[in-house]
Amino acid sequence: MKPTIKDIAQRANVSTATVSRILSNKKQSYRPKTATKVKAIAKELGYKKNLAAAELAAHSSKLIAVILNNTQTNFADDIIAAIQAATDQAGYQMFILYAGNHDSRLLNQAISVALERHVAGILLVATTLDKEAAHTLQESNTPCRLISVYDEADPRYTGFKFTSSNNEEIGYLATNYLIERGHSRIGLAGIDRSSTGKQRLHGYQRAMTEHGLIPRMDWVEYGDYSFGPQQNMLKTLMNKELDAIITASDMVAVGMIKEAHLLDLDIPKDLSFISIDGTFLCDITIPTITSVTQDFYQMGTIAVRGLLNDEDSQFIPVHITPRNSVRILTTKSLEH
Amino acid sequence: MKPTIKDIAQRANVSTATVSRILSNKKQSYRPKTATKVKAIAKELGYKKNLAAAELAAHSSKLIAVILNNTQTNFADDIIAAIQAATDQAGYQMFILYAGNHDSRLLNQAISVALERHVAGILLVATTLDKEAAHTLQESNTPCRLISVYDEADPRYTGFKFTSSNNEEIGYLATNYLIERGHSRIGLAGIDRSSTGKQRLHGYQRAMTEHGLIPRMDWVEYGDYSFGPQQNMLKTLMNKELDAIITASDMVAVGMIKEAHLLDLDIPKDLSFISIDGTFLCDITIPTITSVTQDFYQMGTIAVRGLLNDEDSQFIPVHITPRNSVRILTTKSLEH
Repeated sequence: MKPTIKDIAQRANVSTATVSRILSNKKQSYRPKTATKVKAIAKELGYKKNLAAAELAAHSSKLIAVILNNTQTNFADDIIAAIQAATDQAGYQMFILYAGNHDSRLLNQAISVALERHVAGILLVATTLDKEAAHTLQESNTPCRLISVYDEADPRYTGFKFTSSNNEEIGYLATNYLIERGHSRIGLAGIDRSSTGKQRLHGYQRAMTEHGLIPRMDWVEYGDYSFGPQQNMLKTLMNKELDAIITASDMVAVGMIKEAHLLDLDIPKDLSFISIDGTFLCDITIPTITSVTQDFYQMGTIAVRGLLNDEDSQFIPVHITPRNSVRILTTKSLEH
Repeated sequence: MKPTIKDIAQRANVSTATVSRILSNKKQSYRPKTATKVKAIAKELGYKKNLAAAELAAHSSKLIAVILNNTQTNFADDIIAAIQAATDQAGYQMFILYAGNHDSRLLNQAISVALERHVAGILLVATTLDKEAAHTLQESNTPCRLISVYDEADPRYTGFKFTSSNNEEIGYLATNYLIERGHSRIGLAGIDRSSTGKQRLHGYQRAMTEHGLIPRMDWVEYGDYSFGPQQNMLKTLMNKELDAIITASDMVAVGMIKEAHLLDLDIPKDLSFISIDGTFLCDITIPTITSVTQDFYQMGTIAVRGLLNDEDSQFIPVHITPRNSVRILTTKSLEH
């Protein structure tokens, strides 16, 4: 028969409440000598504590909940791998809850499940917060951190610290890279209308304006970063006689390039592409895809550290990875 | 202040134990009238039960744990999406725990975390079971089901029901498809040495033998289904003067095709490929990749139903999706 707290209490001649406090490592009134004795007896009897009960007693646990928006993209793979490694190293166990595809019900359900398990912290990856979710999280006093999403202009997000790439910088760098190579009719494909999309659009607009080019909203095609809906998107953008397209994710890029081949376009001769993300997908298409590369693994690692130590918000540096999808029309700007 | 079970008990003039039993829906001795009264008061006071406590009381929960082997492949995406949808529809909440890359410590840790939360069931996706894990799961009396992994010859697996494609059939179908198109020097790339790899190898060997061809072990290159290590693999197989290669996953296929382009091979003129999985990756390469396609979404849906209703083990049908990576050397066999 499995030994219980009662067995330990009888043997140690203390109350079950004392045993419970000691085995939960609660800092409360008991003598160190008693603690040593109780722990020795627990070990001797082979007592294995019921963790759910222990968590309830301690009102905390060694669990980290990762709440993930499950749009069909692949950028989160390395973030998750890094969170797994970093939480494991810090002595925590992570588990993942899906928040659907910007589904308010599933998001709030996931938050409830996490809070009910008295998790030590919550990481929200690329999640669109609604008012209810933001409120519940802040009321809970549970440490939270956003990953790959932030919005300093939106009250739903301002209460949370984040670890992310700088989306405005991403949009700026991608656009600037194309302009420096002689492109001026530059489209932006697949961004969404939420914070991330807006920030990347701002970066695009800033780079265009700085170079005396007029950013045009009819060169922007909205999407959700996923593979699939690129067929009409490419045709629509081709009708605008663009030189180059910035894709909002690698999934959008591979979708666009697939469609470009079906339309017999020669890339980058007829049309240049630069993608945002820089995952392995950029290496498997023909041509390979130049990208603004995000360091997702680093992002996951730093986010766990940030959560556990309550560090300030962090931007993880991004960089351009030149591959073969951008045609050099002129190197004039580069020769300045 | 948050209302407690004690508040409800005082108001209803019953014991806290009775309130607890009623609110946990435990089928025990209390009068229906009392239950109605207690529930009404709980609602009136805005009582929100602590789920972890309720789970402990009921010794069950509405949680389904999904334990996932996190090799860097993409086949599990649709399985997870389907599990999420099916568990949600059935009124359960799923959460994912990572078992590392065939990491015994992480696997057993994940199983512990799941069992300690009194989950209603555990789904193990493509997980390599060790003796300890198999034993813990069977001792727990918690409903379990394997997804995309099974082994009727291995005692670690025989105690568990599964939902999977038939790996022997997959190997057979892929090989047969190539032989029927005139190929005879057929390699097999990227399978592992575990159950899944062995089963696919058996199917390959059966098809070769049935057609009077000798399956050769030096035409088999082992791997782990992931993208990356294909450089030497392709060179090694090219030295054997093969007509065609079966890749163990789409990730292996895109890796091989990338390397083939670097070696200036014309696919399928110089070398044919057929892949196992049939995810979107088969559509984004040049040429597109013919595949033995697994229905991962269906697999996830059926697995949840199987877990909740304790159904027998199930094979999910697979089919060939012809694309452009297989050269037709002769249609002789097809004309029979």
